Amino acid sequence: MSRHRVRVADLAPEMTLGPREVRHLHVLRLAVGDALRVFDGQGAEASATIAVLEPERAVLQLGDVVERVAETPCPLTLAVALLKGDKLSDVVRAATELGVASVQLLITERADAREIGAQKLTRLQRIAEEASKQSRRAVIPTVLSPVPLAGWQWEGQLFVAQPGSPERLGGLLDWAAPVNVLTGPEGGLSEREVAGLLERGAHAVTLGPRILRAETAPVALLGAIAAMGR
Amino acid sequence: MSRHRVRVADLAPEMTLGPREVRHLHVLRLAVGDALRVFDGQGAEASATIAVLEPERAVLQLGDVVERVAETPCPLTLAVALLKGDKLSDVVRAATELGVASVQLLITERADAREIGAQKLTRLQRIAEEASKQSRRAVIPTVLSPVPLAGWQWEGQLFVAQPGSPERLGGLLDWAAPVNVLTGPEGGLSEREVAGLLERGAHAVTLGPRILRAETAPVALLGAIAAMGR
Repeated sequence: MSRHRVRVADLAPEMTLGPREVRHLHVLRLAVGDALRVFDGQGAEASATIAVLEPERAVLQLGDVVERVAETPCPLTLAVALLKGDKLSDVVRAATELGVASVQLLITERADAREIGAQKLTRLQRIAEEASKQSRRAVIPTVLSPVPLAGWQWEGQLFVAQPGSPERLGGLLDWAAPVNVLTGPEGGLSEREVAGLLERGAHAVTLGPRILRAETAPVALLGAIAAMGR
Repeated sequence: MSRHRVRVADLAPEMTLGPREVRHLHVLRLAVGDALRVFDGQGAEASATIAVLEPERAVLQLGDVVERVAETPCPLTLAVALLKGDKLSDVVRAATELGVASVQLLITERADAREIGAQKLTRLQRIAEEASKQSRRAVIPTVLSPVPLAGWQWEGQLFVAQPGSPERLGGLLDWAAPVNVLTGPEGGLSEREVAGLLERGAHAVTLGPRILRAETAPVALLGAIAAMGR
C-alpha cells in the first residue's frame, strides 16, 4: 500500500485536489493509476487512485479501504497526581477512551498517596488495555510508575488545569509536538508547584470557574481536546 | 450594592477603563466616589469605586468583595439517556461540577432502561445538591424525570455528541441563549433519532474519532464547554 498521504476536504467517491496537493503529486512523480492514501484530518483515512492528473488539476477515486484513524496526530500524555481508592482506575479508563498514549502518575506535595503498589500498577495497565479495545484503538496506553512532579520531564506542550486561569486550551493547542496535560490531587497543586511548572514552560489553562474533583478534571481537559476533533 | 456592571481586563487594585466603558459611566451619570461592580468575563466579579472620572479616562478602585461567579452566562442543560446501574450518579455528579443548571433524563430507542424509580430520582437530585456544594456553586441543578427523546423540547442551542462528526463545538457555541448538550445510551442513538434531532435544529459535534462510553461522553462534552472558560 502506498505511503504517500494527501489531505482532502472530505472523503468522497471522487475528490478534486487543491493546487498545493496537485503540485505535491507532480513532485512525487506520480501518474494516473497510481495508488495513494487520502485523509481528511478528522480521523478518516482511505486508499485512493489518481484518476485525472493535469498540470494544475487532479481527481482521485476513493478506494474501498476506509478506516477511522483513532490516534491523535502526536502522542498525548496525561500526567495525573496519585489519587485515593479506585479513582485512578476511572481516570485511566476515561483517558484511554479520550486518546492518551500514556498516563504518567505523579507524586505531588498534596497527593493522596506517595506510592502505588506493583499490583495496582499492573491493574491500571490492564484497565488501559481493556479500554483501548473497547474504544477500538490501535494503541494501548502505557501507565508509568509515579515520579515526583519536580523531576518529571515532558516533551512538547504541557497544559496544567488551573481554576480561573485566563488562558484557554483552544488558542494554545498545537499538534506539531507531543501534547501533555496535567491535573493535581484532591487538594490541588501547591502554588509553588504551579509556579515551577510555568517556569518550565507549562501553560495554565482554565476549566471554568468551578472547583472540579481530581477525577473529573482530567476527563474534562481531555474531553476538551477530543472536542477539537482529536 | 450598585447594579451597574463594568467589564475590566483583569481585577486589580486600580483599573483604568477603556473609552467605551468611560462613555458608559458618563451615560449612567455616575460620579467620583460612586460604587459599581466590575467583572472580567472569566468568572471573577467584585465591587469597585470610581476614583478618577475625566471625559475620556476613568480609574476604578477595587472593593473588598471579590467573588468568583460559578454559573454559566445562560442555563446549561445536559440531556442524557437513561443508563444502567450507578452510571447516572457519576454523570450527574460530574455534570454538576461542570456547571449544568439541569439534567434532563431521556428515554431513547436503545436506552438501557425505560424508566427510573422515584427513589432513584430523589437520590440523583441529592447527588446534584452535594456536588453543587462541593464545587461551590450558587445553583443546585434540577434532575428532571425521563421523557421520550422525540417529545423533548429544548430552548436555545442543542449539541449532540456524534463520533466523527465534522462539526466542532468550539465554532458553534453561543451563550446568547440557553445551551443544551445531549448524549446517548451505551448502544448510541439510532440514526433515525439523530436525523430527527438535526431536523429540529440540533448540531452534531465530534468528540474525536474514538468510541466513548455513555458515561464518558457527557463529561467530555461538558469539559469542552468548561475549557472555553464557562
